[in-house]
Amino acid sequence: MGNQAKNYTAAIVVIGNEILSGRTADRNTQHIAEKLNENGIALREAAVVPDIEAKIIDTVLRLSGEYDYVFTTGGIGPTHDDITAGCIAKAFDTPLEENAEARKLLEDHYGDELTDARLKMAQIPVGASLVLNPVSAAPGFNIKNVYVMAGIPKIMHAMLDNILPTLLGGEPVVSESISCFIPESELARELGDIQRDYPDLDIGSYPFFKDGHHGLSVVVRGTDIGMVKNAAIKVQDAINAKKSVKV
Amino acid sequence: MGNQAKNYTAAIVVIGNEILSGRTADRNTQHIAEKLNENGIALREAAVVPDIEAKIIDTVLRLSGEYDYVFTTGGIGPTHDDITAGCIAKAFDTPLEENAEARKLLEDHYGDELTDARLKMAQIPVGASLVLNPVSAAPGFNIKNVYVMAGIPKIMHAMLDNILPTLLGGEPVVSESISCFIPESELARELGDIQRDYPDLDIGSYPFFKDGHHGLSVVVRGTDIGMVKNAAIKVQDAINAKKSVKV
Repeated sequence: MGNQAKNYTAAIVVIGNEILSGRTADRNTQHIAEKLNENGIALREAAVVPDIEAKIIDTVLRLSGEYDYVFTTGGIGPTHDDITAGCIAKAFDTPLEENAEARKLLEDHYGDELTDARLKMAQIPVGASLVLNPVSAAPGFNIKNVYVMAGIPKIMHAMLDNILPTLLGGEPVVSESISCFIPESELARELGDIQRDYPDLDIGSYPFFKDGHHGLSVVVRGTDIGMVKNAAIKVQDAINAKKSVKV
Repeated sequence: MGNQAKNYTAAIVVIGNEILSGRTADRNTQHIAEKLNENGIALREAAVVPDIEAKIIDTVLRLSGEYDYVFTTGGIGPTHDDITAGCIAKAFDTPLEENAEARKLLEDHYGDELTDARLKMAQIPVGASLVLNPVSAAPGFNIKNVYVMAGIPKIMHAMLDNILPTLLGGEPVVSESISCFIPESELARELGDIQRDYPDLDIGSYPFFKDGHHGLSVVVRGTDIGMVKNAAIKVQDAINAKKSVKV
């Protein structure tokens, strides 16, 4: 391939006490991870933080400095525990002000029912550009390399679909999965050897229990589809060799 | 209540590329969060990190310094991508060595089938105490305030059940949930008022869409069950007031 293409990287900040209290499971990270992969951006880290200003600011700034893109979910609604916009404004040392475009979107959506609480959702850091929300109008926003999205999955999906075409990405990651009912430890040496032969690929092994048996899924991931397929054949060969020993 | 009891806090580090690739959703955080809450320990932060040594070490040390307890999941199996034990050893500047007790557990479990790959799971940082694994023998371990557990949910659950009785905790958090089909923004002011009246409680509001309607779940959380119940009545009153306006 000659010179290596740039690897684009990202992190997620899930903002909200409901995940940390165990009340709900985070479903957004998996969706964002899949979409980023399709667009050639590798998700490298995810953080779940509570509705605490200092923690949100520290986390966003740390990840913003470390990765190409940061995506936040949650905390942009109308209630007292929705503090994300204010935190991002402080993080980037810019005022939080009513955004005329955001106000217009809310006016068009709510008409006579645009209350003060709803108007809070037009408070956007100065210098940010809006991320449109076709579901319920209240927008997300982008400032520097940080993309602020809603926490409700349906709205977040729509916002992410609006964001993705604007991002630079590398080559999409492709993967091949091979599953078998061989315990992980019996394939450990062979998988380590294949990983060494293909240093540009990521070969993961994920044990599982099913119907009382130890099983293993091996996932080969990389940007070069030919290389991924070749390594997957090596994995399958290793599995077949174990099976023929067993019979 | 007079002098405030200590608040015990914890963080989770989910180690593994399979979450960040989008291949699987993390199911461990929610389980750990629930169990910690029952034991009076507040989960304050969760991090998902890849199988990269420096990142694992940095994250564990940062969270170990910030919270009372740190729980890690994943990366303690027999394959090349299982690097957690070595990372924890480096983080706490102690050697990684074969642990005699861990080796005995593996010998008893595997008998003649104790391969070199499986013996890797007896490599434990010097100074750590083992966390027993009744499912598949290979133990987790505890060093300083860090508890290292398997990533497979069934095994992690058993390890956590072994760890919890050994931890100090505060009063368990209790919660009351009230759901309604009123948009979040129409209750925002009232919920903010109730939160101000009950600063020791955590009043969260979680909007949802169901059957084409905007709904809202309000969750009141705290350690004083009487106070939680009183605040929940105030929330219900606010919802009832909105409903009677609407009819």
